[in-house]
Amino acid sequence: MEVYLNGQFQGLNKAFISVTDRGFIFGDGIYEVIRVVQGSLFREKDHLERLKEGLEGIGIHPGEAKFEHLPEIYRHLLKRNDMMEDEAVIYIQITRGASWPRTHTYPEPAVSPTVYINTSTFTPYTKLHSKGAKTITENDVRWTRCNLKTTQLLPNILSRERAKKAGADNVILIRDGVITESPNANIFAVKNGILYTYPAINYILSGITRKVTFEIAGQLQLQAIEKPISEHDIHNLDELFLTGSTTDIMPITMVNDIKISNGKPGPVTRKIQQVYNEMLYEQNRDNHESE
Amino acid sequence: MEVYLNGQFQGLNKAFISVTDRGFIFGDGIYEVIRVVQGSLFREKDHLERLKEGLEGIGIHPGEAKFEHLPEIYRHLLKRNDMMEDEAVIYIQITRGASWPRTHTYPEPAVSPTVYINTSTFTPYTKLHSKGAKTITENDVRWTRCNLKTTQLLPNILSRERAKKAGADNVILIRDGVITESPNANIFAVKNGILYTYPAINYILSGITRKVTFEIAGQLQLQAIEKPISEHDIHNLDELFLTGSTTDIMPITMVNDIKISNGKPGPVTRKIQQVYNEMLYEQNRDNHESE
Repeated sequence: MEVYLNGQFQGLNKAFISVTDRGFIFGDGIYEVIRVVQGSLFREKDHLERLKEGLEGIGIHPGEAKFEHLPEIYRHLLKRNDMMEDEAVIYIQITRGASWPRTHTYPEPAVSPTVYINTSTFTPYTKLHSKGAKTITENDVRWTRCNLKTTQLLPNILSRERAKKAGADNVILIRDGVITESPNANIFAVKNGILYTYPAINYILSGITRKVTFEIAGQLQLQAIEKPISEHDIHNLDELFLTGSTTDIMPITMVNDIKISNGKPGPVTRKIQQVYNEMLYEQNRDNHESE
Repeated sequence: MEVYLNGQFQGLNKAFISVTDRGFIFGDGIYEVIRVVQGSLFREKDHLERLKEGLEGIGIHPGEAKFEHLPEIYRHLLKRNDMMEDEAVIYIQITRGASWPRTHTYPEPAVSPTVYINTSTFTPYTKLHSKGAKTITENDVRWTRCNLKTTQLLPNILSRERAKKAGADNVILIRDGVITESPNANIFAVKNGILYTYPAINYILSGITRKVTFEIAGQLQLQAIEKPISEHDIHNLDELFLTGSTTDIMPITMVNDIKISNGKPGPVTRKIQQVYNEMLYEQNRDNHESE
């Protein structure tokens, strides 16, 4: 499999970065994941916008030309890796670059950011989409700039690993008594036909699929409100689901030992799943054909 | 200059890691910095203990044999790089290793952790030790496991860069209205001859120099208390100083536009500096000679 690294297409097993790369030394970088269905990129523009905002947010400047070159690179990579026919994900990571000696402050003069892109085949989590996910709650110990999609992912890793050890599929993060999100997806609750989710502030990464979910709610004439869900209300919710670029719309049926409603995915989640799948698989194809 | 990477001594410019290294992708690693004076390592055992605790804290297991091999490696490196005569620092970084495909949860089966060590010459910040540092305050936006010395250093980077742009030497981090620490050092205040510093809990990295400072306070018959310093009390403090392995004992003379006392390093800080320097430069030499 080939990847792209700093101007070169090469085998994954030949793609190496310097130990002085600030991505390695400091986690000083931003990343993005884009979903691909039969060569069509879902919400590509939104992902590129968020990538740009993240880079600006931490003062990494790859330059306009380099940034605008990205779509050409990952499309080329999808083709080279023969990933145009099935499902795939594109992973883009941009770090502040390699610099010696190690200094917390930005390198002076500025160094060229490291650009790493890979593509991989993807299999949707259809079983979890169908039967629902089991989750555990954990304190949200992350920093307070979760709105930036940085490679500072150790808290997310530790949470997901604990969930795995507990036999759960994902984690619901709790900050100040309310649900923020999961380590890799946003969370919506349904109560009396109304959707609730944490506001798009600095305590969550405002997902593209979260945005799409608001659009779908509009289409379905469902009210969707940015309002935190209290930890204490979990046992009273009608439905609960995750949204994310690789998670899709995934019902949550268990939170610790609490069954959500009757322990089966609810009707609102099902409707949203259905419309989402149409957008991802059907409209997406239309876009592709009209390109 | 030579570095050590996964069993090999090699030139820094030839030391490369895979793009699949979890240190690069996730910031999934622990690091340590040890001060060296003429070939003698200051508080080596404390640093190795902290490194071990950090690795255990995030579930990275290099194995007993690999871990016990570290001192031999960095001593060898100090010699190869001709750093036995002057001052130097040893940098050790251990990540969870390289793994594909990218998964938040730990690789299964476990992969071999990446071990990277470098040494560099070091010049103490004598000017700042003498005249004192200017600082700015910032909200402490870091995660709540600051007791782990991980490579998740982006918040620290962003703070230090803003300080630099503001013409300051360092940052005082404020969480819930009190001083926690700086992005790369602990902070002590002096008021009426008593030392105060933030307790060694999850909101700070409990420094080796912080520990040494408590020992020095004991020798000098000064009371030292683990009690947070309120942001509102800054203007009333007699003295304020930073402690760290490369920071040493560094007086703080300015916080934003507030002068600490008369704007000059105070007598308690001076005494602690003096004893610390004796330990670092004199006792250290004795240890070395008695080895």
